[in-house]
Amino acid sequence: MPRHPALSPTLSAISGSVYSKLAQQLATHQGTVYPLHVGDTWMEPPAGCRMEDFRVADHPGMHRYTAPQGHPALLAAVAVRVAERSGVPTTPDNVLIAAGATGALGAALGALAAPGDEVLLLSPYWPLISGIVRSFHGTPVPVPVLGCETDPAAAVDAVERRRSGRTVALYLNTPNNPTGRVIPRAVLQALVAWAAKHDLWVIADEVYEDYQFAGAHSYTRPLDPERTFAAHSFSKAYGMAGNRCGYVVGPAATMGELRKVATHTFYSTPTASQLAALAALGEIGDTWVAAAREQYRDTGAWAAARLGVATPQGSTFLFLDVAPWLTNGGDGLDAFLGRCADRGLFLAPGPSFGPFPTHVRLCYTAAPPERVREGVAVLAELLGR
Amino acid sequence: MPRHPALSPTLSAISGSVYSKLAQQLATHQGTVYPLHVGDTWMEPPAGCRMEDFRVADHPGMHRYTAPQGHPALLAAVAVRVAERSGVPTTPDNVLIAAGATGALGAALGALAAPGDEVLLLSPYWPLISGIVRSFHGTPVPVPVLGCETDPAAAVDAVERRRSGRTVALYLNTPNNPTGRVIPRAVLQALVAWAAKHDLWVIADEVYEDYQFAGAHSYTRPLDPERTFAAHSFSKAYGMAGNRCGYVVGPAATMGELRKVATHTFYSTPTASQLAALAALGEIGDTWVAAAREQYRDTGAWAAARLGVATPQGSTFLFLDVAPWLTNGGDGLDAFLGRCADRGLFLAPGPSFGPFPTHVRLCYTAAPPERVREGVAVLAELLGR
Repeated sequence: MPRHPALSPTLSAISGSVYSKLAQQLATHQGTVYPLHVGDTWMEPPAGCRMEDFRVADHPGMHRYTAPQGHPALLAAVAVRVAERSGVPTTPDNVLIAAGATGALGAALGALAAPGDEVLLLSPYWPLISGIVRSFHGTPVPVPVLGCETDPAAAVDAVERRRSGRTVALYLNTPNNPTGRVIPRAVLQALVAWAAKHDLWVIADEVYEDYQFAGAHSYTRPLDPERTFAAHSFSKAYGMAGNRCGYVVGPAATMGELRKVATHTFYSTPTASQLAALAALGEIGDTWVAAAREQYRDTGAWAAARLGVATPQGSTFLFLDVAPWLTNGGDGLDAFLGRCADRGLFLAPGPSFGPFPTHVRLCYTAAPPERVREGVAVLAELLGR
Repeated sequence: MPRHPALSPTLSAISGSVYSKLAQQLATHQGTVYPLHVGDTWMEPPAGCRMEDFRVADHPGMHRYTAPQGHPALLAAVAVRVAERSGVPTTPDNVLIAAGATGALGAALGALAAPGDEVLLLSPYWPLISGIVRSFHGTPVPVPVLGCETDPAAAVDAVERRRSGRTVALYLNTPNNPTGRVIPRAVLQALVAWAAKHDLWVIADEVYEDYQFAGAHSYTRPLDPERTFAAHSFSKAYGMAGNRCGYVVGPAATMGELRKVATHTFYSTPTASQLAALAALGEIGDTWVAAAREQYRDTGAWAAARLGVATPQGSTFLFLDVAPWLTNGGDGLDAFLGRCADRGLFLAPGPSFGPFPTHVRLCYTAAPPERVREGVAVLAELLGR
């Protein structure tokens, strides 16, 4: 039992900052830096959706609390957008506006997982999801599907082999951070049918829905709306990660429980951030996204070609296996990342995304395209490509 | 074990929105409304600390992520302020910037309570603290001290009678929401000494530190800095509740664990909110607080006199026992609150603050002074005062 000066033992299984090992080197590096370890965009959000655009004279009380579930106008606009895009009838009762997708997924996981419950995580996965499960005292169970994510039977076999009597949910992320791949509709269908067979919840992290580079995004929720929580984010779509505004959509009957977790972990999403999100849900935002998508696609395709890997299908990342470069002299991934950092290039380590000890993730939107190309050239040279 | 369509059983013990019963009536009321149920201020934050004051041209990247622990400049300024005010040496390593005091207390509770651990709550307490403990699967244990909060021996006796082998921490709130009373230094000393004797953590919620109406605020952390987490908020001090920015100060060796919980529940505090908080930590903010404190004190004293209760010592609330008005015809607190609401006056129910079935809370800063006076007059009339 915890006693001063001890804390909860649960948290010891969560690693600290994913990038803390490199932070010191980043802070002190002399010369040009290529900070491609962060999952963010270098672009400022659209004019009209910036904090300077929201004045007290126009929005009296905009620094006060709004309803914990979300600003009523944003809830309504999100419900309309989700219904239009997914085809699933959706009302504000299906929606919780949250402190980014982190807050959205935290609310969902906090509501559905009791201590010791297991959550299957298709991996590689978004780095925070494992710690979110642990923060609420659940047990994350990585399910590696790298290489078989396009094969419905193989994907179902992978999750079935990790299912136990304590399994309560399956988490998936498409378009994927870190792989840049998209889960095909046939695989989503097979996984959701499998979840239904075993009475499991499905948690679909679709924050990169706007950044699919060919074809339309396949939404998970329409396959079984009463079983699925879908997380989305204004951060990724509109370059507002620092605003901390996202949302989760799910069965109306459950949303009261999600709201309880949200109310007791961040209370409400910042009011000004919600005004900015609302402004983005229109032509201003659509125009910005279309331009960003084209630029991201071009930069991603160029980077993939330069590095000799497959062209990304979506999201803003490349995930590379650098195993052949780790054996030289017997050193490991940390040493490889250190060699990159010595030249100003910062990448994220594979183990942050699941059991991938020899991979690195590169974000090709974290800096302007020209800077990204220079950083990619540094990596290509290190890889002899 | 939870299974679709069931959710975690832990949350069922948390009531939903504290004010949900009255929300419908508030939304549809015809005529003047006195919304004195909310804990907020009617005032706009100081000019210079509003969202419109932060421009991308001056703050490039201000919509992107900042460090999860907090914006470096704000961390540094908070550390200086805390050290000056409390007298305890404090560095950024002692500080976590969080999504309001809710996020700050969530990070502390999430870090120190394992499932089933008990947290003693001096009551009446801030309504969300009970649900925060439950959200992380701990057990809140209310310790009523109303009426004996100025007597060190009685306060220690009250907590000792509720201590068990699962107790890990003691939570207290001073100046108090909802009572408007201040815990005297002698009581704080006795409680902290008792906590030390039993190896318990102390969590001091001091978000109303700036709103003590006579004398200086007594800080808890100096009494035992290695045992104490202190929560503070820009929301209450500067009228920025909607910005969701607060902080928690504690032992440096533990803050990494608090950061883990924060990272996995809201990731980081909004960047623009942190810029606004930093701007408030100077003369602009000090001037605003001094004027607000004077106005709050005058309105609170007037309201207390009109209602025939003791003048508030701090915070922004009055807590009244309306038991004599509940027996009329055998109806209870809900009916009383309904009679208030029929006349446009909205108050918060006592049970939100602990085992107080016959109390109501009134916030005398939630509307401009003239409006508050009209609302208080409605209540006085209902009470025959």
